[in-house]
Order: sequence, then C-alpha cells, then structure tokens
Amino acid sequence: MKLSSLIEQIKLKKSYLCVGIDPDLDKIPEHVKNEKDPLYFFSKSIIDSTVEFSVALKFNIAFFEAYGVKGISSLERLIKYVNNKYPNVFTIADAKRGDIGNSSSRYAKAYFENFGFDSITVSPYMGKDSIEPFLNFKDRYAIILALTSNPGSEDFQLIPSKGKKVYQRVIIESRKWKGSENIMYVVGATNAIHFSGIREIIPDSFLLIPGVGKQGGSLKEVSFFGMNKNIGILVNSSRSIIYASKNEDFADKAGFEASKLQGEMELILKEKKII
Amino acid sequence: MKLSSLIEQIKLKKSYLCVGIDPDLDKIPEHVKNEKDPLYFFSKSIIDSTVEFSVALKFNIAFFEAYGVKGISSLERLIKYVNNKYPNVFTIADAKRGDIGNSSSRYAKAYFENFGFDSITVSPYMGKDSIEPFLNFKDRYAIILALTSNPGSEDFQLIPSKGKKVYQRVIIESRKWKGSENIMYVVGATNAIHFSGIREIIPDSFLLIPGVGKQGGSLKEVSFFGMNKNIGILVNSSRSIIYASKNEDFADKAGFEASKLQGEMELILKEKKII
Repeated sequence: MKLSSLIEQIKLKKSYLCVGIDPDLDKIPEHVKNEKDPLYFFSKSIIDSTVEFSVALKFNIAFFEAYGVKGISSLERLIKYVNNKYPNVFTIADAKRGDIGNSSSRYAKAYFENFGFDSITVSPYMGKDSIEPFLNFKDRYAIILALTSNPGSEDFQLIPSKGKKVYQRVIIESRKWKGSENIMYVVGATNAIHFSGIREIIPDSFLLIPGVGKQGGSLKEVSFFGMNKNIGILVNSSRSIIYASKNEDFADKAGFEASKLQGEMELILKEKKII
Repeated sequence: MKLSSLIEQIKLKKSYLCVGIDPDLDKIPEHVKNEKDPLYFFSKSIIDSTVEFSVALKFNIAFFEAYGVKGISSLERLIKYVNNKYPNVFTIADAKRGDIGNSSSRYAKAYFENFGFDSITVSPYMGKDSIEPFLNFKDRYAIILALTSNPGSEDFQLIPSKGKKVYQRVIIESRKWKGSENIMYVVGATNAIHFSGIREIIPDSFLLIPGVGKQGGSLKEVSFFGMNKNIGILVNSSRSIIYASKNEDFADKAGFEASKLQGEMELILKEKKII
C-alpha cells in the first residue's frame, strides 16, 4: 500500500486508528469457541465491525503461533479475507522479527509475499543487515521497534550511548540504510515525553503507537506530540476494543469502542486543521 | 532437558556440536523436492546422519515460516520425531522472539509446550518483561542474543554505554532477572576477541556459538576462549553441514562434515582434559 493511500484513508475515515488483533481462546466469548475456526471467526467479526472506524489492522503473530499449524492457518485465511474485502486497510504483521540477512530474507518473503501483509514489525538489535532484507519491497514497510510501550523499554532502549539514548541511535542509524524510505517506527504511547525529540530526528516518518488504553498512554498526548503535517501516526488499540464484551454482542461492542476512539481522533484532526 | 544431561551427552559423544537446520527448497537436492514433505524429508535425513556426532539441533524458524502452514506443519513433525527418537538431543528453536510480556507468554507456550523445544533464542531489545515469560519453565532455556555473528552486530550491540558495550549491559542486566538460571547466551564466533570479557561476567553460563564455518569463525579460538569447566559451549554449524552435497549422498556428506567437526572437538576436549 502506498503511503499516500494510507494518508488519504485517514482523511476519509477521519481516523488514524489501528485495531490490534490478539485473539486469545481463553478470552473470547463462549459461543465463539464452538465455531470450527474460532480464531478466524472471532477476528473476522471484530474486523467487520470496526473497519468503518479504523484504517489499519495489526495482527499479533504470537497469538496465532501459539496455536501451531491451526493458528497459522487461521492467520492465512484472515489476511486473505482482509486483502480481498478491505484492500484499503493497511495491514501490519506484529511479529518483531530480525535475524541474520539470510534468515531475515525468509521472514520478509513469508510476510510480504506469502501472507501479503503491507508491513511487519522488526527488532533492531542485530543491526543493519538484519533489517535491510525487509526494505526492498515496493510499498511494503518494516516498522522498527524504537521505543516500546512496556516497562522493559527502560532496560536497554533508554540507556545512554555517546550523548544519545540507544533508541535514538537506532533511529539515527537506520535512516542511513538502503531503502530507509520504507521504514516506520514503533514508539510507545507510554513514552509520550520522548515524542518531540523523536520528531526532531524523523519529522516525516510514520509512527506506529501502541500503548493507548489498557497500557495507560494518552491519545491526546501522543497525537499532540507525535503528529506531523502528513498526520504521520497510527495509534493502536487492542484489548480495550476486542475484549470490550464477552457476550453475543462482542463485535458490536468492539465497534462501539472503535467508534469512540475514532470520534476523539476526528476532533483532534479538526483541531489540527488536517480535515 | 537438564543441563547436567546435556553436559553428560557432550562427554559421551565427545562433541559440543549443534547442527543448524535451515532447510531451503532452492538449495536442497533435486530428488528431495519430489518428496511429499520435502522440508521434513531433507531435515530428517540430515538429522539421522549427523546425530551420532552432535548433541544439539537448532531449527531456524524463518526457513519453516517461509513456507506458511506447510512449513510449520513440517516443523511440528520434525520436532516430534526428534523428541521421540532422540530424547537426549538438546533442541533449539532459533526464533529470536521477544515481545511485551503478554505476547512473549504466547511464544513461550508455543515453543516449549506445543512444539516441545528445550530452548528458544530471544532478542533482548524490549527488556526484562519481554524475556521473563520464557524463564519460568523447568529445564527449558531462553538463549538471549548477546553478541551476534553478523556484521550488524556492530551497529548497536557494540556501541558504548556507561563504560560497557550494549551487549555487556544485556548480559549484566539479564543476570538479575527472575529465572536467570534458565538463560543461555548467543555469542557469535566471528567475535571471538570478546569471549574472555564475556566469561568474566558469566563464567558459568552456556553459550550458543554460531558463525563457525561459512561465516568465518574459528572453532579452536572460540573453544579456547569460550569453554568453562563444564564445557559451557555449543558450537553451531548449519550450511557447511547441511548443504555439503546437492546429490543423492547429501545425508552421508552431511554426516561426514559433522564427523570432521566432532573429531576436532574431541581433540580440544582431550587437550582441555575434559574427557
């Protein structure tokens, strides 16, 4: 998907919401468990009822891999469904992959060519040659973990190195890599204090922002500090949308939660005079 | 698998060789491609012919994931086969996972409980809560990427932070985590110069050492600097073993390459008076 199309969709839907699909058989409604492919049924229902209010879908691969072959099969069905039915939705494989070049090429092939995702999250620890294999696909994106939303982000991402933090080194270095125009960054909403500094280094890059909702980040804050002239942010919400209800009405309730976030986003976009 | 059993196996087989299973349909012998499940057939043949000379098997998950549901299905068959037929072989899922705690728990469940691996490689970038979920399984191990064997290891692992390198911070910090007795570390053979320093911080931990062979690391060097009183190292070789021949004799040739490495290891173990 082209970035210009993503931006167009954001303006059209008045939303920069990304819905996180983390299907957990222990948490889904009882009646869904009786379906033949409960992961698929649950996720598809959530997608159908939230797509009006969102521009992106983030599939948490851990939750599919946890169910082995069955889980990966559900994932294949889902991404195929989304690509066919909602081609304007930006899809993210939240896989946090990263390996030596030889292996990273395999992951890139798996997620971009076989599954057909628009993007994949990647971990920068192994450096340039572990990420470049993801950067030579037209209109596909590697979303590098820069500053994550979890408490452990303090352990290594925020430690100092030559006058910068390690996560800042990751951003600065990665700008020099071949295909860097296909890089986006993960920056957690719980670290909103760092957004201005990040925007000084990468004024134009898209940011994927998890951590609003259950993890405690504020939508207003991250929008205020993170947005650029092309919007430049996708804000993800997973659990507060997809587990809004454990009853028959789970999809409707998910839609309602998504619509609330979309409403807040519309106000912010208007305030910023973007729409 | 208990560490004491692994050490026992090393002494018994006079080998600390780990065979890396990276099955690539573009590289396997032509006649194998006609098999019903070529990934399984190829990998199983390699395993059967090298197991006499090796104590561990490292499955490169990227190479299975690249083939979607089929690839994961081959992986499931393989690990089941190994666990049944060769229960004394230490199995490694080379997956380099790492995510927020909630998701890492899923990966741990997938690899330890569903697949049944003894260990999994994990990336430390997201810090403590991304790795601790892997550490509370009895006799199962998280193998943390410390200093990898690829060129990109220089980008972030080797940059300075408060008088140490980042990879040293990773080792030092991770020692404090709950369940740290279940941690091993990846240290690349191409970085043998750093082994002495690493052994000062973690004299007792097991190290998984990739990068001998095609990547250029020296078995003698890493054995000399990396070994401790309990041996404490597994040296991995993938491509130089599994792609030793593209003909009908590929398994025999793989066995021969493994036996050569085992022979060198036997000499080193004797020189060190371990056996």
